[in-house]
Amino acid sequence: MAIRPLAPLTWQLARLSTASEAPASTDWIPAHVPGAVQLDWAAARGLPDHNYGQNVRAYDGLEDFFWLYRTTVPAVKLAAGERLVLTGGGIDYHADFRVAGQTVLTHTGLCTPFELDLTDAPAGSPLEILIHPAPKRQALPADRSQAAHVTKPAVSYGWDWHPRLITLGLCADIRCEVRPAAHLRHVDFSYQLAGDFSSAQITVTAETNIPSAFTWKLRDPEGNVVIESATPTDTLAAPRLWWTHDHGEPALYTLEVTLTAPGADTHTRRVGFRSVRLVMHEGAWGQPAGFPKSRSTPPITLELNGRRIFARGTNWVAPEIFTGVITADTYRPLLELARDAHMNLLRCWGGAQVSKEIFFDQCDALGLLVWQEFPLACNYYPDTPSYLADLDRESRAIIRRVRQHPSLGFWCGGNELFNAWSGMDDQSHPLRLLNRNCFELDRDSPFIPTAPIGGMGHGDYRFRDETGRDIFQIFQGSANTAYSEFGCPGPSPVAYLKTFIPEAELWPVRPGTSWETHHAFNAWDMEPTSWLCTAIIEHYFGPATSLEQLVARGEWLQCEGYKSVYEEARRQAPRCSMALNWCYNEPWPSAANNSIINYPALPKPAYYSVQAACRPLLASARIPKFQWNAHELFSAELWLLNDHPAAQTGGELIATLEHDGQLTELVRWNFSGLAPQQSVAGPSVRMVLPDTPCGEFTLVLSVTGHREWNSSYRLSLKPARRPVPVSTATMNA
Amino acid sequence: MAIRPLAPLTWQLARLSTASEAPASTDWIPAHVPGAVQLDWAAARGLPDHNYGQNVRAYDGLEDFFWLYRTTVPAVKLAAGERLVLTGGGIDYHADFRVAGQTVLTHTGLCTPFELDLTDAPAGSPLEILIHPAPKRQALPADRSQAAHVTKPAVSYGWDWHPRLITLGLCADIRCEVRPAAHLRHVDFSYQLAGDFSSAQITVTAETNIPSAFTWKLRDPEGNVVIESATPTDTLAAPRLWWTHDHGEPALYTLEVTLTAPGADTHTRRVGFRSVRLVMHEGAWGQPAGFPKSRSTPPITLELNGRRIFARGTNWVAPEIFTGVITADTYRPLLELARDAHMNLLRCWGGAQVSKEIFFDQCDALGLLVWQEFPLACNYYPDTPSYLADLDRESRAIIRRVRQHPSLGFWCGGNELFNAWSGMDDQSHPLRLLNRNCFELDRDSPFIPTAPIGGMGHGDYRFRDETGRDIFQIFQGSANTAYSEFGCPGPSPVAYLKTFIPEAELWPVRPGTSWETHHAFNAWDMEPTSWLCTAIIEHYFGPATSLEQLVARGEWLQCEGYKSVYEEARRQAPRCSMALNWCYNEPWPSAANNSIINYPALPKPAYYSVQAACRPLLASARIPKFQWNAHELFSAELWLLNDHPAAQTGGELIATLEHDGQLTELVRWNFSGLAPQQSVAGPSVRMVLPDTPCGEFTLVLSVTGHREWNSSYRLSLKPARRPVPVSTATMNA
Repeated sequence: MAIRPLAPLTWQLARLSTASEAPASTDWIPAHVPGAVQLDWAAARGLPDHNYGQNVRAYDGLEDFFWLYRTTVPAVKLAAGERLVLTGGGIDYHADFRVAGQTVLTHTGLCTPFELDLTDAPAGSPLEILIHPAPKRQALPADRSQAAHVTKPAVSYGWDWHPRLITLGLCADIRCEVRPAAHLRHVDFSYQLAGDFSSAQITVTAETNIPSAFTWKLRDPEGNVVIESATPTDTLAAPRLWWTHDHGEPALYTLEVTLTAPGADTHTRRVGFRSVRLVMHEGAWGQPAGFPKSRSTPPITLELNGRRIFARGTNWVAPEIFTGVITADTYRPLLELARDAHMNLLRCWGGAQVSKEIFFDQCDALGLLVWQEFPLACNYYPDTPSYLADLDRESRAIIRRVRQHPSLGFWCGGNELFNAWSGMDDQSHPLRLLNRNCFELDRDSPFIPTAPIGGMGHGDYRFRDETGRDIFQIFQGSANTAYSEFGCPGPSPVAYLKTFIPEAELWPVRPGTSWETHHAFNAWDMEPTSWLCTAIIEHYFGPATSLEQLVARGEWLQCEGYKSVYEEARRQAPRCSMALNWCYNEPWPSAANNSIINYPALPKPAYYSVQAACRPLLASARIPKFQWNAHELFSAELWLLNDHPAAQTGGELIATLEHDGQLTELVRWNFSGLAPQQSVAGPSVRMVLPDTPCGEFTLVLSVTGHREWNSSYRLSLKPARRPVPVSTATMNA
Repeated sequence: MAIRPLAPLTWQLARLSTASEAPASTDWIPAHVPGAVQLDWAAARGLPDHNYGQNVRAYDGLEDFFWLYRTTVPAVKLAAGERLVLTGGGIDYHADFRVAGQTVLTHTGLCTPFELDLTDAPAGSPLEILIHPAPKRQALPADRSQAAHVTKPAVSYGWDWHPRLITLGLCADIRCEVRPAAHLRHVDFSYQLAGDFSSAQITVTAETNIPSAFTWKLRDPEGNVVIESATPTDTLAAPRLWWTHDHGEPALYTLEVTLTAPGADTHTRRVGFRSVRLVMHEGAWGQPAGFPKSRSTPPITLELNGRRIFARGTNWVAPEIFTGVITADTYRPLLELARDAHMNLLRCWGGAQVSKEIFFDQCDALGLLVWQEFPLACNYYPDTPSYLADLDRESRAIIRRVRQHPSLGFWCGGNELFNAWSGMDDQSHPLRLLNRNCFELDRDSPFIPTAPIGGMGHGDYRFRDETGRDIFQIFQGSANTAYSEFGCPGPSPVAYLKTFIPEAELWPVRPGTSWETHHAFNAWDMEPTSWLCTAIIEHYFGPATSLEQLVARGEWLQCEGYKSVYEEARRQAPRCSMALNWCYNEPWPSAANNSIINYPALPKPAYYSVQAACRPLLASARIPKFQWNAHELFSAELWLLNDHPAAQTGGELIATLEHDGQLTELVRWNFSGLAPQQSVAGPSVRMVLPDTPCGEFTLVLSVTGHREWNSSYRLSLKPARRPVPVSTATMNA
């Protein structure tokens, strides 16, 4: 007999100014659990939709109150030995639990599970959870630094793509359940793969409330029982390995653990067998050359089941401002789009909350690897005992939960902690603690203290930098081992913009309006017009005359910009082994952002460019820059980019330059078969560009026999300047 | 009543071919404990002195035998509750203990203490310790890689300055003692200094054999009791901080811990209060600039008691081949010479064994900081469970012992592990394990996984590299954060050479003789004539005509080479904060070596150059190169190098160029007072050099009012080539 869940509890909520305030009966409002106090308050008090216009500011300050949730202990008939338990996966952020007015439990943290035994509480007793105000280092400015002393994710304190809206409340599932006399508290599945992957030595650990024997079964992906065991360890011969979808099948087995005591508990979950390592890239040991000699760069090449793979992926951020409303249906379309874009790695960024189980379940099934960060980002997290205790507890809970998933690729301490804006370093105790906890609880998964580590690069996040280099040039001039963040902003589509920007503000675009609230202006301190980047768009095209024209231009830059970086990173293999754009998705509607998918799951045009650039096999061109001049000698290197694990037949690549509907064939490249995962450099093409007023040309690559590898690049072409009549020139001077 | 040591045990030793072989009565030889089986065997069987000529080869293979030590359980009258215990600090390397023929204990490791309770063994029972053959990965070449699976230090497997002579035996103190009914097993002293160093929160932990209350006293450096406490924690107001000798007083307190049970144990030790951190250097956060942006370099600047200090020091290696013969008198002259050379940091290199307590005691007293490595060096130490268990045990023992010493600066995983010749990386489990153990057992002392880490540099180890840069140029062209190894080899003095090189081999020098055995040829694979470096000496001076001339030339290069690097590193502050030459001392007589002190404690001329370059205050010249040509324009930048913690009055620096007894004054630089720890750049001097056959000139810097800051630089001057008579030239062509 398994754990018996009870009907969902009915909750109410009241806002309090102090912890001891007693709400009047009229103060209570309905509460949705899981959810957030802000959402309940907005529903009850008629706050406007936070996603629209500048409404989000109406939510300011709600996080500074105490909030009291209440329900009652349910009436339930318990058999001998059964326990009634209230349990949940975590709370946002700090809470006291009271039964019949007595504080019986104090809890901190979004990912640390809690349990409260209610067996002895009379049915109908008041059960209350007092949520404390959001933690804030009050002396600091109203930004992420206010969260630098806690494990509460920093993103809701405000980011360049996330409004300041500090969530609070019962964000995770919380339920009452009846537990049999003997029940499972935690099941742990671990294994050692033989060096040649011919077998897996499995260990199943069952943590129980009382010492209890157990049996377990393992079913293969077709449901056949392949192991049935009464001992914790057993060996599986010829395990079907879990692969990312682009390299094989994400094979999942099913584990069933059953306590042998009569009437006892059972537990079922999907498991998989994979080996993930971070290894040195080919050639890494030869560098640095010469004396005084420093170390070689740290390993960042992913090796999955013994095969080095190029990681094509993206940075996953919170898909909702309010974690509590996330369901499997929130994750599913986003994750399927990632798979459809040929991505194999998601970096789950440390500014956001660690995802729910249903996220990892889907990654397991879809064959997506996860780079999982702990909740540290862009802050100086201190060595204080209180923070270390908080981080120790929360990180252990995260590791114990997530390590079970074959989709877990590796752990990372957090985002950009070894850079000036964070100020942490290798000696920081929080990062040494995380290294220790990962080593103790999941040592076979790699751990990096932060990203970037040495050799890796973050940024740029602009199509054109302050020195005038465009995004093509920036990355062709770089030699990083991994591009784990690079951004190329783009505006959101016009129809989408109209859903959350009031019509009166739509045109002309300007700061101080909903455009700025939704990150189109003053979002990132390195670029004043971020993320709409009007200054950069105008640099290439001059002032736009309509919203439609402005958006189309911005989309063009984002599409070609992202494509250029993904393909350049792949050309830089094996030194480079990773390309992850910043960012994939967003938690609310942005007017402009580095994202390629609008909230909640609407692909922007750039999504399809990234999808094209991430095909395991494609024809590619290394193009020196985006904008060309009439009469200039255009040139490009031709490549076949190949991450595919199987050998390919040869073919012919035809490069054509198109402008104004005219096609000029530049070269035909007959290439022989391709070895697995081996990109090939081909000829270069050159052509003097015409002078045409249409403003653009396209390089088209067609592959005979492999049409699915075809590519094209749409580039800007500036017409020659017409001679200015002398009289006019003089008048303007 | 304290632990009562008994009279030293009398040991005998026998060499066995197998573990089970029973020695004949004539097989037994006298054994010295602590010592080594090789030394006892040599004494008994008349092997020649291993330090002389090529005799060391006579010791080959002794490490492949089993060796049986024997003694008898002493007769001792025990009071009620007392225990008779055999105890020691470790064994080289793996041993079985037998009492009356029964194996009662198995032990591994040089630093892990052991205990064997003999209370119930009848007096006179045979007590045997069977030493197993030295661990060797037999399939590998006869070099350090044979030790890559164990914590036995790799150095005795052969190094470029250490013969292959793999030690074995009872290398540490081993004794029988009578322990009172209640006794102390371990006393731990830890403390937290207030941020402003105004107080120390002390915690004293006493591990006892049975639960026992204790009291403790703390005496200040003058012997006055400042705390007397019966609780584990107490606060010391205004602690006198422990400083390195160049920055203050190495203040030592005395801790006395006494068990309160009648007749129980007491323990006394010196302790000190200091804070050591590794911090980012000034300007570090500004780099790297530009995108894609990697991390800033890891911190390596030492901060002692809140003050950033420049680390002037050296690499300490094993002072004896056989650890067992080391006493306080072995360490004392070497450590006093280090202090006298103004050094404040010793890097205790991971190839060698961790030093004995008497080493750290002396460092505590002399005010020398220690960078302590674990026994990993230049090898790939694997992730295997057996090695990890070995390393876990040994490293915990090392940390528990050494963390008690105020002289402990920081921990390091080992030597050059992130370079090609080792092949370990940030994911290596042994290094993650060491990080964990240091974090758990001594988290307030910094930990680095290896040296070099990013930004730090090791090498070069030659006066002139293969591209023709001399050592002046190599380091003036570098920008590392720390030079934690740099070498400049020099020959040993002639009189010293004659003590271990047979007269017939002394001249001409050549490989294949005792010169090569003692590291003058083919020592380092990057330089065939290492370490005598005849090719480099001849490059500057042509062939030598006598041993005396060759040695004098080599000494000249070593003296000026080392001086140039120490002073250049100091000029590169604050980016650079550390200069440690490779190496300080040596374990046996070298014919040529990067060392500055010959075995056992004989300073080479280079010692005095290093001493001059490490003065906290000195006049210094940045000289572009060592060898100049007649008529060439000589130039040099003048500096005042200043690591002194107090402000200094001004003065006048007079730069003079001397050749053939002629003095030319180049400049007078009047400088005002110097701020603490602030070096100052002064004028440059220039002068066209004369054409003189004497072959050298000297730049002399004299400081009026601060004669102790005077410096001089002896440089090479090549006479102009004389026109060659035409007939001769033709004949030679």
